[in-house]
Amino acid sequence: MTIDREAPIGVFDSGVGGLTVACEIMQNLPKERIVYFGDTARVPYGSKSRETVLRYSRQIVRFLQTQGVKAIVVACNTASALALDEIEKEIDIPIIGVIKSGARVAAATTKDDKVGVIATESTIQSGMYQDYIRKIDASIEVFGKACPLFVPLVEEGWMEDSITNQVIERYLSVFARQQIDTLILGCTHYPLLSKSIKEVMGAGVELVNPAYETAIELGGLLKRLDIESTIKETGEFPYRFFVSDAANKFTHFANSILPVATPVTQQINIEEY
Amino acid sequence: MTIDREAPIGVFDSGVGGLTVACEIMQNLPKERIVYFGDTARVPYGSKSRETVLRYSRQIVRFLQTQGVKAIVVACNTASALALDEIEKEIDIPIIGVIKSGARVAAATTKDDKVGVIATESTIQSGMYQDYIRKIDASIEVFGKACPLFVPLVEEGWMEDSITNQVIERYLSVFARQQIDTLILGCTHYPLLSKSIKEVMGAGVELVNPAYETAIELGGLLKRLDIESTIKETGEFPYRFFVSDAANKFTHFANSILPVATPVTQQINIEEY
Repeated sequence: MTIDREAPIGVFDSGVGGLTVACEIMQNLPKERIVYFGDTARVPYGSKSRETVLRYSRQIVRFLQTQGVKAIVVACNTASALALDEIEKEIDIPIIGVIKSGARVAAATTKDDKVGVIATESTIQSGMYQDYIRKIDASIEVFGKACPLFVPLVEEGWMEDSITNQVIERYLSVFARQQIDTLILGCTHYPLLSKSIKEVMGAGVELVNPAYETAIELGGLLKRLDIESTIKETGEFPYRFFVSDAANKFTHFANSILPVATPVTQQINIEEY
Repeated sequence: MTIDREAPIGVFDSGVGGLTVACEIMQNLPKERIVYFGDTARVPYGSKSRETVLRYSRQIVRFLQTQGVKAIVVACNTASALALDEIEKEIDIPIIGVIKSGARVAAATTKDDKVGVIATESTIQSGMYQDYIRKIDASIEVFGKACPLFVPLVEEGWMEDSITNQVIERYLSVFARQQIDTLILGCTHYPLLSKSIKEVMGAGVELVNPAYETAIELGGLLKRLDIESTIKETGEFPYRFFVSDAANKFTHFANSILPVATPVTQQINIEEY
């Protein structure tokens, strides 16, 4: 199969969080076009079962393939943890997720071989961050902690806030006795709390945000497969956005975090794919 | 069309919260059988659009009809607010929701004609509680406040908790200057926070929980239509539970709040209906 190097990259997430990954791709691979899908009708994935997250992810991959994407980035940690391995076997275009990148940076960052991971319940239960890190270096100890209130707190807009700080302190207090020196922000919403998380963890703990590293990994992959885009300007706007619910709300959020103004977001019925 | 009086009542919610309504039906209408559906694969509804909540509710109603229900109770405030009016026109069995009952009790309870409503974002934005109460008595002032963090706090199990109390205080502080004497708990999860809410609001504010009143309204409706069940004991377990995801987790929760031990919960693919 020949892959069209000028085809777009498919990026998907359970909702808006994956825009942080799309943003890194825009900044680091500026020639690449993007088709983004946010499953806002069924968000969040973080408390749902493997079976359900896999079914949802398969529908989204089928949708992205109708858009002619040349590669797919799973910008959702939960879907990367629960669905990526299966889907990789089922499709004939390259697909990468945020977890492997995050794991690799964390393994390279830790000096004392003690890494913490904060993520949704389903991501932590999957043990994927732990597995990937141990595959890289079996001597690294990995400690996971689910933080289910972080996403609703971010969505409520309580980013630098006394209540949010208390929630952060309560969740992260488990890491005090484990003396980690590296903490993976294993959910795309969490970087929006990084200032407060940094304060609680102190200067001795390095925070790892997999979004940037995923964009870099994607760049390497496209190069290796010789499917990088070579077109600088087509005149056409290079990014398209689709959601399963509440397109206007999504556009509003996208405009607040992306380096470009987002045109119309299209709503589709993902259950039909 | 003749309705079979021994057929079960269909009760549905976006997740586990509607079990508080099922519980009131069990206790107040002990002869009635129940088929419960919790949409755990797509929970929560409270931040989703009218269009999406209506599509989901229609699928669930179609599923409940395959189970031969004689009437339907929408135990979810958001679905009652966004979908009930439409669905009522589309089906030929009676259907009721929690909002009308809650509105009626609140209107009967307030002495100073000032009622507060706390609920999800979508329920508040729909203005349904306000509309129903004003239809009953146009002189009553209704003040709504969305409390999106209450559901995740309850699901995290932080029911009587210093952080939760601060969230309650912050959300409910808007009611201080409005001098309400009645507060509707307009989301099925909120009664689980009623002790702390009561403390914050003080003795002068009556809390209204629509679950009980909905069961009473259902009883009246069945009587009026002459379709009450007359069978005391069939030997068969009278309650069946279905979810769209994570059946075991649901059974565990159901057993913690229902007056009967829940047998197996069945998982179905609701998107097929």
